[in-house]
Amino acid sequence: MTDPVRVCLVGAGRVARVHANSIVNRLPMGKLVAIVDPVPHALEAAAEQFGIQARFASLGEAIQSLDFDAVVITTPTFTHTDLAVTAAGAGKHVFLEKPMALDLAECDTIIRSASANGVILQLGFMRRFEPEFVEAARRIQTGEIGQPMLIKSLTHGPGLPPPWARDLTTSNGMLAEVNSHDWDTVRWLMGSDYERVYVEAANFKGAARGVQTPNFYDNVLVNIRFQNGGLGSITGVCPCDYGYDARVEIVGEKGILQIGRLGGTDVIFCTDRDHGLVTPIYRTWPERFAQGYILEMEHFLQSIRSGKAPKVGGLEGRWAVAGVLAGTKSWLEERPVYLSEVLAPQKG
Amino acid sequence: MTDPVRVCLVGAGRVARVHANSIVNRLPMGKLVAIVDPVPHALEAAAEQFGIQARFASLGEAIQSLDFDAVVITTPTFTHTDLAVTAAGAGKHVFLEKPMALDLAECDTIIRSASANGVILQLGFMRRFEPEFVEAARRIQTGEIGQPMLIKSLTHGPGLPPPWARDLTTSNGMLAEVNSHDWDTVRWLMGSDYERVYVEAANFKGAARGVQTPNFYDNVLVNIRFQNGGLGSITGVCPCDYGYDARVEIVGEKGILQIGRLGGTDVIFCTDRDHGLVTPIYRTWPERFAQGYILEMEHFLQSIRSGKAPKVGGLEGRWAVAGVLAGTKSWLEERPVYLSEVLAPQKG
Amino acid sequence: MTDPVRVCLVGAGRVARVHANSIVNRLPMGKLVAIVDPVPHALEAAAEQFGIQARFASLGEAIQSLDFDAVVITTPTFTHTDLAVTAAGAGKHVFLEKPMALDLAECDTIIRSASANGVILQLGFMRRFEPEFVEAARRIQTGEIGQPMLIKSLTHGPGLPPPWARDLTTSNGMLAEVNSHDWDTVRWLMGSDYERVYVEAANFKGAARGVQTPNFYDNVLVNIRFQNGGLGSITGVCPCDYGYDARVEIVGEKGILQIGRLGGTDVIFCTDRDHGLVTPIYRTWPERFAQGYILEMEHFLQSIRSGKAPKVGGLEGRWAVAGVLAGTKSWLEERPVYLSEVLAPQKG
Amino acid sequence: MTDPVRVCLVGAGRVARVHANSIVNRLPMGKLVAIVDPVPHALEAAAEQFGIQARFASLGEAIQSLDFDAVVITTPTFTHTDLAVTAAGAGKHVFLEKPMALDLAECDTIIRSASANGVILQLGFMRRFEPEFVEAARRIQTGEIGQPMLIKSLTHGPGLPPPWARDLTTSNGMLAEVNSHDWDTVRWLMGSDYERVYVEAANFKGAARGVQTPNFYDNVLVNIRFQNGGLGSITGVCPCDYGYDARVEIVGEKGILQIGRLGGTDVIFCTDRDHGLVTPIYRTWPERFAQGYILEMEHFLQSIRSGKAPKVGGLEGRWAVAGVLAGTKSWLEERPVYLSEVLAPQKG
Repeated sequence: MTDPVRVCLVGAGRVARVHANSIVNRLPMGKLVAIVDPVPHALEAAAEQFGIQARFASLGEAIQSLDFDAVVITTPTFTHTDLAVTAAGAGKHVFLEKPMALDLAECDTIIRSASANGVILQLGFMRRFEPEFVEAARRIQTGEIGQPMLIKSLTHGPGLPPPWARDLTTSNGMLAEVNSHDWDTVRWLMGSDYERVYVEAANFKGAARGVQTPNFYDNVLVNIRFQNGGLGSITGVCPCDYGYDARVEIVGEKGILQIGRLGGTDVIFCTDRDHGLVTPIYRTWPERFAQGYILEMEHFLQSIRSGKAPKVGGLEGRWAVAGVLAGTKSWLEERPVYLSEVLAPQKG
Repeated sequence: MTDPVRVCLVGAGRVARVHANSIVNRLPMGKLVAIVDPVPHALEAAAEQFGIQARFASLGEAIQSLDFDAVVITTPTFTHTDLAVTAAGAGKHVFLEKPMALDLAECDTIIRSASANGVILQLGFMRRFEPEFVEAARRIQTGEIGQPMLIKSLTHGPGLPPPWARDLTTSNGMLAEVNSHDWDTVRWLMGSDYERVYVEAANFKGAARGVQTPNFYDNVLVNIRFQNGGLGSITGVCPCDYGYDARVEIVGEKGILQIGRLGGTDVIFCTDRDHGLVTPIYRTWPERFAQGYILEMEHFLQSIRSGKAPKVGGLEGRWAVAGVLAGTKSWLEERPVYLSEVLAPQKG
Repeated sequence: MTDPVRVCLVGAGRVARVHANSIVNRLPMGKLVAIVDPVPHALEAAAEQFGIQARFASLGEAIQSLDFDAVVITTPTFTHTDLAVTAAGAGKHVFLEKPMALDLAECDTIIRSASANGVILQLGFMRRFEPEFVEAARRIQTGEIGQPMLIKSLTHGPGLPPPWARDLTTSNGMLAEVNSHDWDTVRWLMGSDYERVYVEAANFKGAARGVQTPNFYDNVLVNIRFQNGGLGSITGVCPCDYGYDARVEIVGEKGILQIGRLGGTDVIFCTDRDHGLVTPIYRTWPERFAQGYILEMEHFLQSIRSGKAPKVGGLEGRWAVAGVLAGTKSWLEERPVYLSEVLAPQKG
Repeated sequence: MTDPVRVCLVGAGRVARVHANSIVNRLPMGKLVAIVDPVPHALEAAAEQFGIQARFASLGEAIQSLDFDAVVITTPTFTHTDLAVTAAGAGKHVFLEKPMALDLAECDTIIRSASANGVILQLGFMRRFEPEFVEAARRIQTGEIGQPMLIKSLTHGPGLPPPWARDLTTSNGMLAEVNSHDWDTVRWLMGSDYERVYVEAANFKGAARGVQTPNFYDNVLVNIRFQNGGLGSITGVCPCDYGYDARVEIVGEKGILQIGRLGGTDVIFCTDRDHGLVTPIYRTWPERFAQGYILEMEHFLQSIRSGKAPKVGGLEGRWAVAGVLAGTKSWLEERPVYLSEVLAPQKG
């Protein structure tokens, strides 16, 4: 029996705890040996919750202090490049949360660094591991609904994102922070890259929630044309308040397929005939993708063990960032934007 | 174009209004020409609502006063035999609400009277006309799920039945008043007659609702063995408070089939992630079987026009009554009861 | 009791038969007294099916030959204006199928003619009468999900439309012929007019089906910004082959609401564990909107009786046409198009 | 960090592999250190699959050869008592698969042995840990649907059970082998013990499948009266062929609640409008209760760690056996049987 893969968790926020739980409570193949966060109380709280002794304010200190095999990076987007390059440079395998980075140059830096150092780079697109997404992809790939023609993917999140995550200057806003998964999903299932995008957005709740971030929007609707002629639609609503909602619908040449449903638990009840039948809904993303989070981390550990490239890596992360950049440009300039404009911008 | 079938409605209660609505607003093939009810204010209210000029306190008066082709009898069970015999004796076709009658002798009297007078006799088992029941029966008959082995049918009604309908001495209680449809449905879909039945019942809400009827029960669970070896289960809950609920599940040698669902309208919504997704439920039986009520009446009118026997007649009504009698006997005597005991009771 | 409203049916095609069925078999308030179609065998077939004696090759002949109160116009779009104006000019109330007309000038001509002649003009947007749409609208209007922010409506039809209906020169293509209902629905439920639209379209099946129509598309995706800042999305797929599919999803400030579902009948069954549970789907639009077709015609007859304006008239038809025109222009010119451009086009 | 709980797996069949997978791949808190099975090839196959070095033909050998903390017993019912007593006698904590044993004397022996040796005894009722069952129980306990009045639970399994499991002389037949879970569930959720039961059974497929076991049945329908006056119904169908199906429906004084649904995966698709929408169904019980199997084993390990009694122990196992015995007696004697008859049988 092989020794577990030793993991250093970078970041101590919400998704960090989800990954810590996977490794500590569900994956004997991994071992959480260290945690890094510059904010002392966040660091202590997470370390205590998961019984991690080795605690550091920076990844550099962790690398110098103890030996481990891999990092799981869960910090804000603008920190990704430095952390990923540092880890890869030290020969650590990298699991990197989405969105990959703020721009394509950063994505390329990360990809090159992982490649040059021979480490595995896996992006945190857990939907690719969620059983019903996997099953849907399998059915599409076997031709069950024919060539996809039209794919719609939506993510509606209940609460207002933190300031850094809704500000175009520190992140790429909701299109990136909430809808990265949808960008990846539509491209994955269509089997083609985006050709051009058009985006409309709206701000209904910002004022009432005291949001002063410039260019804030809480509703976004993306229209995509793929290189193969297919069409795509992405919807983001955040805060939507009513729950966490992630669903996909694909129309192929031979049929239709839906992934996910609005209700979340197989308990339904009715206690008032004037009200109706109630189905509990997913309240949060860790509930909605409970399986996917475990399975993506298991895949990361297995990829390290086997030395095989993971199913979702830097290229997938880069394409999602490219879509976000084109989409944001479309919205600001009120016109369809070709991916070629962001992939190879014209020189002034 | 033929003249409409002239109908005299007997009774002015809830189901009477459902049938009146079908004839007046949805069935050009019929014409509601008279209404009968001994209670003046009920008679006036219904007559006004549907614009019926000819109003009578008794069926006899109606027959003497004007000409018509058919009666629709919607009065309490204990009045059925006299009314049906009177109508048939006057050459009127008879649509008779369920339960057919209080005992098998009454059923036989009605059947003989209709037969002797050459009139059509249709029982008010509207589920046989509700589109999803029809579709299920069609699929079963084409062998889609193989020979049915086990059929469960339930009817849960929201409110407390009126005193006469829950008293074993004036009706046969909930097994008859609420579950007649289930008795008919399981026999229809199994394609076999009941051989023996066993019944358990419970009284949870009677005291709190001030029910003093002896032998009152608000929950009933019937276990049936059919002559072909198949099994059946009927559930009744009344008052269930939460809505009107009627569903069937059939397990055949090759598969399973369900009729109906708990939710009632194809509008679903969620406004609170701690509460969940809401599907409006059927509140009442006229909502639940809105199509079936129109279609059974159309079938009655068509049967009169064509002279063909209706799909559901006296025999079906009689078997449902037989099931009820055996079931009640089982419950009171705490033992399985063979249908042969009620079909041909032993002489002391 | 009042006499039935006498109706002359113009057109003998598929939707004509749906309306004929409503009047002849379900609406005692109406009477189908004549039918008009220039194609003899279509005329005869429909007339025989519904027992209509008075048959004409043109509306003019019908008007001269017998007396009636109203017309139901079901012919191809390019004939609507002449027929509607002829009927209104003769004092006949007009029920007009969608799309209203080919352009806004035609719409205005029809509206003015109905108004000048004091006749009722109702557009064939039956979704406004389908029970779950009515219920959804009621819930939205009572504020249950708050102000709508984002509305998606889709219509996918199984078969290839006839040549005239997919040719931009004789109709306005699928955006008009298939998606008129969606244009009306999103505007109705958003409670605001379109401000600008952006459209992508694709042609996946045209070649294989031998379609030579220029500008043919079988997939279309519309992005709408409403005047109130809300967002809208319309999807059309035709031929989609897999069934008839019409659903709506609305995200409001307080919650989400869905209208319709992919499955169509409350019978579900499973006979093969490697295949799965099967829910019959709506095969055609007459099945999907069976109630709506009866209820819209009943509303038309009631509006004639009461003299009140119908719930959906010329203005609604005109807005749907405006959306289609802006959408088609957007698609051809590959840019977002403001409604102001089609409502009041700039002079060269 | 504490050392993992060392587990010896007894049995190498299907459920043994499910538990092995939980411990080896999902529960770092446990460690599978040995496996026992008298059939060499079964033993080797399972040991290889999960990388277990220590392999034994009997539990006694395992106990003598290496040190461990707990056993997981997955062998046929008739072996349970000896194995459980052996393990407890050696101070090993016991996880015991259902049904607990063949009769109540055996149950008592097991319970006494565990108690006398101070070891934990947990029964394999994984439904008590499956998230939607837990959630349902929580809602019932908080009074959401009021006092349960009527509970129905069904288990339909796809394939023919092995000869020993369908023979009343070596097991207690399907009522025990398939429906043990239902016996436990209805008692748990009703919050009351069975008072009397009545059972009907049928044999539809036995002949065609070449079953020669005396008293074989493939359909069973149980009617239960609880001590609190509530009613219960259990259905078993095996082989049902169409999938693995386990659902519960509870009617309480204030409402209704359903656990589980017929469809099994949140992927739905339609590729043929004459066929319909397809929802993949659960094919097997390991799929259906994938979460419950992990969670019950985690609970067992946690109970060992904490020293607290597990949520489901010998008493629950014993009541399920009592229900099975009364039910089988009812079926054979064709009469309702009181639990008092099997709990304290009359002396001849």
